[in-house]
Amino acid sequence: MISRTDVEAARLRVGSRVRTTPVFEADGLWLKLEQLQHTGSFKARGAFNRVLAAVEHGGLPPAGVVAASGGNAGLAVAHVARELGTPAEVYVPETAPAVKVARLRALGASVRQVGREYAEAYEAATKRAADSGALFCHPYDQPEVCAGQGTLALELEEQTGGVDTVLVAVGGGGLMAGIAAALEGRARVVAVEPEGCPSFHAALAAGKPVDAEVSGVAADSLGARRTGEIPFAVAHRTGVTSLLVGDEDVIAARRALWERHRIAIEHGTAAAYAALLTGAYEPTEGERVAIICCGANTDPSDLAH
Amino acid sequence: MISRTDVEAARLRVGSRVRTTPVFEADGLWLKLEQLQHTGSFKARGAFNRVLAAVEHGGLPPAGVVAASGGNAGLAVAHVARELGTPAEVYVPETAPAVKVARLRALGASVRQVGREYAEAYEAATKRAADSGALFCHPYDQPEVCAGQGTLALELEEQTGGVDTVLVAVGGGGLMAGIAAALEGRARVVAVEPEGCPSFHAALAAGKPVDAEVSGVAADSLGARRTGEIPFAVAHRTGVTSLLVGDEDVIAARRALWERHRIAIEHGTAAAYAALLTGAYEPTEGERVAIICCGANTDPSDLAH
Ligand SMILES: Cc1ncc(COP(=O)(O)O)c(C=O)c1O
Ligand SMILES: Cc1ncc(COP(=O)(O)O)c(C=O)c1O
Repeated sequence: MISRTDVEAARLRVGSRVRTTPVFEADGLWLKLEQLQHTGSFKARGAFNRVLAAVEHGGLPPAGVVAASGGNAGLAVAHVARELGTPAEVYVPETAPAVKVARLRALGASVRQVGREYAEAYEAATKRAADSGALFCHPYDQPEVCAGQGTLALELEEQTGGVDTVLVAVGGGGLMAGIAAALEGRARVVAVEPEGCPSFHAALAAGKPVDAEVSGVAADSLGARRTGEIPFAVAHRTGVTSLLVGDEDVIAARRALWERHRIAIEHGTAAAYAALLTGAYEPTEGERVAIICCGANTDPSDLAH
Repeated sequence: MISRTDVEAARLRVGSRVRTTPVFEADGLWLKLEQLQHTGSFKARGAFNRVLAAVEHGGLPPAGVVAASGGNAGLAVAHVARELGTPAEVYVPETAPAVKVARLRALGASVRQVGREYAEAYEAATKRAADSGALFCHPYDQPEVCAGQGTLALELEEQTGGVDTVLVAVGGGGLMAGIAAALEGRARVVAVEPEGCPSFHAALAAGKPVDAEVSGVAADSLGARRTGEIPFAVAHRTGVTSLLVGDEDVIAARRALWERHRIAIEHGTAAAYAALLTGAYEPTEGERVAIICCGANTDPSDLAH
């Protein structure tokens, strides 16, 4: 389990290797523009913290790092490995789109395409790490990863002078957990998921992480089948609450953020804004609310008029 | 002519009616994210200052405000009029695209389509203002407009702790003039234009504003035929220098800003970044350089992979 202390340690550890992303206040709402982070999402924070913690504790294995992800987590691990001069192997399903594979390769990663589903690529990656001795970097269920993601909440606190509520999109829960640990006792954290990706909602209902069916417009970023054990424990301890929004609300929120603020983000990221636009979350008078614009690895074509 | 004092007065006058837009440091370069301003460009700053100065000096005429622009200046004047509860008439050529007319109408402006060229719409607008008594809001050649645009440079200075150089895209020159006045003696200002829109470059060569042919990918925002008298005078006094970049450099710079930083901007705006990417402007070791991301009223379709 992680606490604010771990997030503070992560911040010191990663230092200027991650960007301090700006915040922006518009119409009384704070937006943390984390889509401006290296590789276009917050994932670089957790990946840097995971790998740099290993460097501190004895150094990196010659085999480098291994990840399983065709999405933002994979890009982040590839970036971190390149920056630190260590090899990266990234496992993705055979069905991964060519453009994602090309992006990973462009960052210098060796891409391994295994299985028809993410679960198979994941299996192969963990097996590979066990065999080669490489450091396995989980997309969300490792303490260093969660603590690294939380560093954006420390920045947010300083940049805004403190907020009452943070709305955040949730996949496996690493980002939510990092924020909740960083702001424990200081702000409320609301987890927002599209109805098609309800794994945290289901976990809260069941009292523990359970498998959920995933589908819909945000499945590429928020489609973790099961909330991580560490994220769930942190969320439970800190009292994170959960909201669901419809896919059509997510689409409308993504479009509204472009129309109103000229901010282009990916669908999953728009879930947090959707909770406000639909009234699923209704701030009280004077409540200081922030949303995390956590990623922009999106095709912006459909934002055109 | 305007000086830093006018820009400071403008800042007090417009107050929180304009957004404080964030800055973002990436790879040693400061980016002022002014595309997040109301209506998607810096133009709201000058328009607010122009109209609020009139409010201070005797109030607004019953006929409200008049502008000539199918682009960002028109949107800004429409926004300002709506915020201040006064009517706005915006003159555009008959050839203005339907989507631009629709956007002006959506902001509550009465749109008048006159003539085949911008010059004719401009004539009609000034005549109308003379007839109706409405306040004419020029897109760049009025002191209040230039001073208003300059307010972003005061923010930039505070947010960065000061820079050595500001690279800025130039159309009629209002933005450049505001920045140069605000930072006179404090930072160098470099005006960047696409080769197809070289009116300031031509003015510097001629020693006074002269007509230039305009064309190319950025003509919609930077296509003023002739630099304004006030902008030219301020630029001359403060020693603004001029650089040209090719249209293909502008296109590449706009794409690079999306690829690297997930920032979507319009073509004209990308000229400043193009000057760095092409080496047209080469910062010295340790030079603190800022570019102004001045607008994002763009169709982002072509940013897709
Ligand atoms: C842009 C974006 N937002 C949110 C998430 C969800 O993060 P987490 O899995 O830590 O809940 C992801 C995960 O990939 C993401 O890429
Ligand atoms: C986005 C954008 N950038 C730059 C300019 C140039 O501004 P100026 O005419 O003040 O030089 C404009 C003018 O419309 C614009 O819309």
